[in-house]
Amino acid sequence: MTLRTTFLGTGGAVPTTRRAPSAVMVNREGERFLFDCGEGTQRQMMRFNTGFDVGHVFLSHLHGDHILGLPGLLQTWDFQDRTDSLAIHGPPGSRRQLRDLIGAGGHDTAFPVRIHEVTPGSVALEGEAFEIRAFETEHRTTSQGYALIEDDRKGRFKREKAEEELGVPPGPAYGKLHAGESVELDDGRVIEPEQVVGDPRPGRSLVYTGDTRPVDATVEVADEPDLLIHDATFDDEMAGRARSTGHATAREAGKIAQRAGAERLALTHISSRYPGDARGHQREAAGVFDGECFVAEDGKTVEIPFPDDE
Amino acid sequence: MTLRTTFLGTGGAVPTTRRAPSAVMVNREGERFLFDCGEGTQRQMMRFNTGFDVGHVFLSHLHGDHILGLPGLLQTWDFQDRTDSLAIHGPPGSRRQLRDLIGAGGHDTAFPVRIHEVTPGSVALEGEAFEIRAFETEHRTTSQGYALIEDDRKGRFKREKAEEELGVPPGPAYGKLHAGESVELDDGRVIEPEQVVGDPRPGRSLVYTGDTRPVDATVEVADEPDLLIHDATFDDEMAGRARSTGHATAREAGKIAQRAGAERLALTHISSRYPGDARGHQREAAGVFDGECFVAEDGKTVEIPFPDDE
Repeated sequence: MTLRTTFLGTGGAVPTTRRAPSAVMVNREGERFLFDCGEGTQRQMMRFNTGFDVGHVFLSHLHGDHILGLPGLLQTWDFQDRTDSLAIHGPPGSRRQLRDLIGAGGHDTAFPVRIHEVTPGSVALEGEAFEIRAFETEHRTTSQGYALIEDDRKGRFKREKAEEELGVPPGPAYGKLHAGESVELDDGRVIEPEQVVGDPRPGRSLVYTGDTRPVDATVEVADEPDLLIHDATFDDEMAGRARSTGHATAREAGKIAQRAGAERLALTHISSRYPGDARGHQREAAGVFDGECFVAEDGKTVEIPFPDDE
Repeated sequence: MTLRTTFLGTGGAVPTTRRAPSAVMVNREGERFLFDCGEGTQRQMMRFNTGFDVGHVFLSHLHGDHILGLPGLLQTWDFQDRTDSLAIHGPPGSRRQLRDLIGAGGHDTAFPVRIHEVTPGSVALEGEAFEIRAFETEHRTTSQGYALIEDDRKGRFKREKAEEELGVPPGPAYGKLHAGESVELDDGRVIEPEQVVGDPRPGRSLVYTGDTRPVDATVEVADEPDLLIHDATFDDEMAGRARSTGHATAREAGKIAQRAGAERLALTHISSRYPGDARGHQREAAGVFDGECFVAEDGKTVEIPFPDDE
């Protein structure tokens, strides 16, 4: 029941030797989702062994540092004889620019590429026991974030209680009860699922903002997300520039994470003006956020456990 | 009097962790020329410290793996507040696709970008004491290679002969004689430049093919080039595939280098089917070429001395 995030590019508009432009790979039980696709993403995927089998790409906005890796990646998929269709999800109005971008390498793919314009607030992808939802962000262009939200899981089956206390014999009855059906025993008693199944347990959730100012929608899109990946282009000293360029500071990201009740906060889209490890970003966010907080680095992988398995 | 080549990307159409897509930086006395610009070229420039001050980009053809690094590089130059104009030289008919490509990141540069369509056989850039010339190649699309050819340098000034044998007094007369003027001495004798200046010495030259089958034009464009950078996508075993895809094998590259009388041969555009060091390529080319021969690697730098300084 893997939910794994690999940071492929954690840099800002101008990459550095340490940080490629934006891209995040999410692997949920073997199904891969790519969030943004900056220049060089395909080589980062190779370098960090994320696997290449991606069905859906989600783009936060159409600035070059979030999309310029697409045509090369598509070309490589084609050389690998990909036949599966690819869905590219982008903000409203992005279809035409995306079509032009995909054709920019002069290459037509043999596999189908479908572009979906997704309105913030709606579901971009309805998966099996999860969804990926777009939410409004605030940047200098049409932009949106994405949240992967798993459905609640069934409550735990109280085997000991069923067997020893209620005398339900092990067998098919356990499955029925866990699935929510009542069961009549040989002695005529009827056991209700509520007697032996605990409360539904929350699924996991992950929120990716892309480039944005701190906004309420990020707080609201998911209930206490397990991982919030937030724009933290600048530090406190550059708060004015963050405002004027439509980005967030690390502290602003921390405040959003705190309000959202996030478990963990990943600070990303670090400006090239911080060529080192951006420790200052971590300190500033940690000062206002009670959860775990780190500066994302290219190649860093984060496993997201179920809240109740921690 | 530097002439330095840095291989930024030595991979084929599909990059690997070891090889980025095609790009070669040439630095001639501080003036930088970029030959092809595959995805990720800007980060390779950072990684290998080539410097960013590039006035001219020369594109061999418009396949994605040779051009997809352009929009990101232009965006970065713009963020660096570049004001100098950029000249992009491409094959005939490439202007429109290049304009589309440059705009694919949704970014307009503040500095001027001029696109020059260059006909094979003509001079793309007339520099001071050198030229960069396009020559015909044979690929699956309109394509061409480029040769950087320095003018002959003046012959050496025979100072000892001038001073001791002919009694020319040191001073301005030496400069005049070296520049080709005759000089009248105080005693009435006239000294001709030929008496004290050796034969003109050849300049240096470098030939970059881009993707191509072995062709005569590569042999003919420069007289005994100091460095020939040739497509060597495949090895002998894949000779048929080299033919069908418009590429060369290492051995074919070696034969061209031999016919051209090249000093050194760099094998590049190595297919991703050779993930290691492609030693087989080196062996196959070395078997038919008497000069120095190596497989180019990302980050490798080659200094090209004057032939007579070696």
